[in-house]
Order: sequence, then structure tokens, then C-alpha cells
Amino acid sequence: MIIRKPYLLFLGDIKESAYAKTAFGVRDWTPEDCIAQWSIEGTAVDLGLDVMSPDVAQQAGARSLLIGVAPVGGAIPKSWVPYLEQALRAGLDIVSGMHSRLAEIPGLTELAEAHGCMLHDVRHNDSKFPIGTGRKRTGKRLLTVGTDCALGKKYAALAITRALQDQGIAADFRATGQTGIMIAGSGVAVDAVISDFLCGAVETLSPDNDPDHWDVIEGQGSLFHPAYAGVTVGLLHGSQPDAMILCHDPSRRHIAGYPDFPIHDLREAIAAYSLLAKLTNPKAEFIAVAVNSSSYTEAEAATLMINIATYVGLPCFDPMRSDLSPVVNAVRAMG
Amino acid sequence: MIIRKPYLLFLGDIKESAYAKTAFGVRDWTPEDCIAQWSIEGTAVDLGLDVMSPDVAQQAGARSLLIGVAPVGGAIPKSWVPYLEQALRAGLDIVSGMHSRLAEIPGLTELAEAHGCMLHDVRHNDSKFPIGTGRKRTGKRLLTVGTDCALGKKYAALAITRALQDQGIAADFRATGQTGIMIAGSGVAVDAVISDFLCGAVETLSPDNDPDHWDVIEGQGSLFHPAYAGVTVGLLHGSQPDAMILCHDPSRRHIAGYPDFPIHDLREAIAAYSLLAKLTNPKAEFIAVAVNSSSYTEAEAATLMINIATYVGLPCFDPMRSDLSPVVNAVRAMG
Repeated sequence: MIIRKPYLLFLGDIKESAYAKTAFGVRDWTPEDCIAQWSIEGTAVDLGLDVMSPDVAQQAGARSLLIGVAPVGGAIPKSWVPYLEQALRAGLDIVSGMHSRLAEIPGLTELAEAHGCMLHDVRHNDSKFPIGTGRKRTGKRLLTVGTDCALGKKYAALAITRALQDQGIAADFRATGQTGIMIAGSGVAVDAVISDFLCGAVETLSPDNDPDHWDVIEGQGSLFHPAYAGVTVGLLHGSQPDAMILCHDPSRRHIAGYPDFPIHDLREAIAAYSLLAKLTNPKAEFIAVAVNSSSYTEAEAATLMINIATYVGLPCFDPMRSDLSPVVNAVRAMG
Repeated sequence: MIIRKPYLLFLGDIKESAYAKTAFGVRDWTPEDCIAQWSIEGTAVDLGLDVMSPDVAQQAGARSLLIGVAPVGGAIPKSWVPYLEQALRAGLDIVSGMHSRLAEIPGLTELAEAHGCMLHDVRHNDSKFPIGTGRKRTGKRLLTVGTDCALGKKYAALAITRALQDQGIAADFRATGQTGIMIAGSGVAVDAVISDFLCGAVETLSPDNDPDHWDVIEGQGSLFHPAYAGVTVGLLHGSQPDAMILCHDPSRRHIAGYPDFPIHDLREAIAAYSLLAKLTNPKAEFIAVAVNSSSYTEAEAATLMINIATYVGLPCFDPMRSDLSPVVNAVRAMG
């Protein structure tokens, strides 16, 4: 899936920031791709960008309207449809991460075709992928894995990619989820792939590359999640990571939404991921632990990271707070 | 997916038994569901059943035409289409395990509707499944797992189901692959499910049951398969097995089709499966090893099974050759 940038970010009539995580994520990680914001008059959250209509945004360079909010239920409200139509008439593609497909909105496909525009349903995947081969690919790969879902695997991968690039190391962020794809402009929503082809899809996402090039692959799910561990394993095997980073939120006591499933001990988590990763890359190793310390003060976070680093014997950092040079150095040491 | 039985087995114009594995499997495991065979005149393999046309078979009680052969490439040849149409006109549903869908054959959907018949593409899955819950379900479950694909997990599950039933233990075979579904008449082709819903699909397949009832669930793939381990893990977690049986072919040196991936040591395999299984059932345990000894003499197989049993400390049997009472006793001992 390849998306045309830059974006006009559409916020609908969503008032709570919690439902606009996609818009904030795209704004924070690729500000250069965000031309402006647009919403249903005077009702939505504010990203602090210029406000533009689709016509004006298109003239300013925008190529896609990105739906940056997720209403409860994941369906596109009927009241939004005239706004989507207005975007198509202005020549913008539409990018959506909703459960319901844009193509299910009556007339939208036809209108898109009439204006030479594309409809991108990032949460769905109609591509055909090959079966995984297990063949070792050239180039280096780093995968973020987690003790749970939704605790910072994407942000860790993005921050590491940026830190590597800043230090002159060739690196690409490889997106495996909807917000990641919107940020990167391409990728594969792996949880939307048919199980048989999951590993092959990941192999396709991260092809052969230069020997010293790093793909930094966004992790999904968790090996300890009762619903999603299969996705995590397929992604792990297809990624063939040389380096892994364990992402962890120390404030979380159980898998989010699954109170009967406690968060695993960090050493056990590292051992279990390592055991499975070695199937497709016998040299796979952990190089750091990334914590999401957003619910702690700076001082608390510092103590916590020292304790974790001592316990697991690896550098520990918060990708949103820490100096990332220990991670960059660990990557550099791997050649 | 629920299929109407009994079957008229269609053999097309396939001459090699190797391409008729589905037909032989269905004939061997549910002979009571096989009314007759039918093929393109005088050209196909012989199952040893009566030969009937769709009209005659329908009058004899048949409810579905089952395509029991797989031509190279997995597509339905054009020359077969008139035969499929003849079956629909006789009032038979059609059951196919091909990669190409029956509905892609021009006019076939309309003809099926006109005759009140269903088209079942067992390899595909258009059902909506929930996300896995990890909630512990009532009743007991046994899952067959393997050191590789295609070495006897389905046959082991079928043989164990039959042995349990013969000893008066309430048991159902739960099919997770296309041939298994054709034999059982229902099931979920798990490798055709979208990754996000894999675990939830398996939970749906094996719902709450009586405390002393056993679901014997057909395994898929292998934890050591570079392309399919994700499917295996989702199936493992959704199954919540109380008992596991490791299926193994001692003559195999590497994963079939993947010469760079050696077969894992049996103790290591048991340890790795156990580690993952305990996430959704902390009491999950192995009760036996099932070998596919078809490439060995009776004497060789007997020695081999003694050696394996000694090495892993569990009963070892060949589901197609051995007395299954050690397995039945192990199941009975679990309550």
C-alpha cells in the first residue's frame, strides 16, 4: 500500500483528543507531511495546524485527506460523507483506518474514479502475498516487540529510526499497523492479512537491502496476548530480526483489557521471544528495553530505568525522553 | 461452515492417487458418508465405491458433490464445469477445497441459487469471527501439534476421537483444515482466517461443553515452520488444550520444502509448545507422541516407538498401527 502525501488531516466532529491519536501521531512524526487540518465547523480537536478546505489544501500541495480520528465503533458517520465527497472533488485521495470500508459508502468509489482519486482503507488488505520462504535476506533488521499491545512499539521504532538516520546510519521505518502506515506512507497492516500469508507479507515488507542498511520494523501485539500472539509470531519470523528491543510499560499489571493475564516478567519475556526468533535468525538478540514511562515523573522514570537495566542486563531507555545513543551504539556495534 | 452429507465423490479426470488424497481421506474416515464416486468417463482413480451419476446419487440420498481431487495449481479445469453444473441440476451442493473459488466460475452461483443449492469453498473463509477472549471454557480439549506440517496431525486426531468414542468417552473431532472439514462436515479452515481473528475463530470452533466432554482439535502447521508458526500459535492459544499430542515423522530430516530448517529435537519441541500453551491453559501438558511410521517396517516402527517413548518419557504410538489404549487411558486419567 503506497499513499500519496502530504496530508490534509480531517478531524470530523471529534472533541476528545483520545479519539484523535492517529492525527496527533501523524502530526508529531511527520510534520513535514501535514499541510493543514480540517473539521466540521468549530466542533473538533485542534492540532495547531492551519485550517484549510480541501480546495485550498490541494492548491497548497496536499494529495490526500487523512481521517485522523476514530469515532466509537469504528464506522464512518453519515454526517461526514459530504466532507469526504468534497475532498474527492478537490482531487484528494482519502486515507481511512476505520473498520468500515470507504468503498462501502454508496457512490464514493464512483466519485473517486470520476476525479482520478484513490480510496485507501489502511485497516484492510486486499493484496495477495506469497507464502513465507524463511530465506535469509541481506541487510540488517531491528524489530520492536512488547510485553503487551499498545504500549509504544511504534513510537520506539520511529524514534530509533530517526536516531539512526541522525547518526548517518541508513535506516527505514517499516510500518505494520494503520497509524504507522499513515506516518510512513506505505506498509502492510499485518493483522489484516490472511493467516497463511502473514509471514510472507512481512518478508515482502522488508526485502533484501544493502549489507549495512537497517529496517526498523514496527512490532504488533505481544507473544503474551491471548488473542494476538499468532500475529506477533508471524511478524517475528518474517522479520528475521538481528536486533530486538523489548517494549514495556512498568505501570501495567495485566494485558490491557484481559485482567486474567498478568504482564510477564521481563527476563522470561526476553527468553521466550529469543527462543522463537532464532528459528529464522539464529543470531537474533535483544539489545535494549524501551519503557513507556509516561505515567512517571522524570526522577521516578530514571530510577525505574536503572533498575530494569540492572535486572535484564541491557540498556533501558524511554524513546520519548531518553538520549538514544546507547541504542544507536548497540546497533552500530552489530555492523 | 456446515456441509450437507452424505457425499457423491467427484474425481474429475485425475489418474494419480497422490492427487486424490482428499477423496481417500473422506472415504477412509467417514465411509458412511460416501454414497458413491463419479468421474469423467473411464479416466480417473478408483475409490472402490459404486459409480453413480448425480441424479442417481441424489435419489440414493446424496446431498453434496465433493470434489475429492486437487489438480496441479489448485484451479478447477474448464472441462469439469459441465459436471459441476450437472450436479447442481440434480440438487446437490458442491464442496471444493480448491484455491480458486466456485463462485468465480461464470454462472455457477446463479445455477446453484436456481436449484436451491450451496457452493462451499472450504479453503476460503468469509465468516466474521470475534477477537479472542482468552476466557477459560468448560469441557476438555486435546490438540495435536507437530514437528512439521503434513505428517499426520489430522489422522492422529481422527483416530484418537474414534478410540475415545469407542471407549464411551464423549468426544468430537474439531476440523481446522479443508480435508478435516470435509470429513467432519463442519469446522474452520484456520489458515484462511484474517490474522487478527485467528484465535477468536478457534474459540468459536470449540465452545463451552460438558465437563467430561473432549474436543479433539486438528492441529495445523508447526511452531518450527518458517511460514506457518503464527497459525500454529493462534490455534494453540485458542484451543486452550488440556492435553497435547506431538506428531512426528522420524524419517523427515527437515521441514518439508524448507531444506535449511532441520526438524527440532523432540524434547525441545515439547518444551517450546508447553511454554506457549501455558498462556491460555496453565495446566496444558503433553500426554503422548504420535509417530507417522509409514516408511518403516512393523519391526522397525516398534523399536523406533520404544526409543522415542524412552527419550521423551511419554507413550509413543502410531495412530494408524498401534493399540490406542495408552492414549485413551491417559485421557481418562485427566478426568
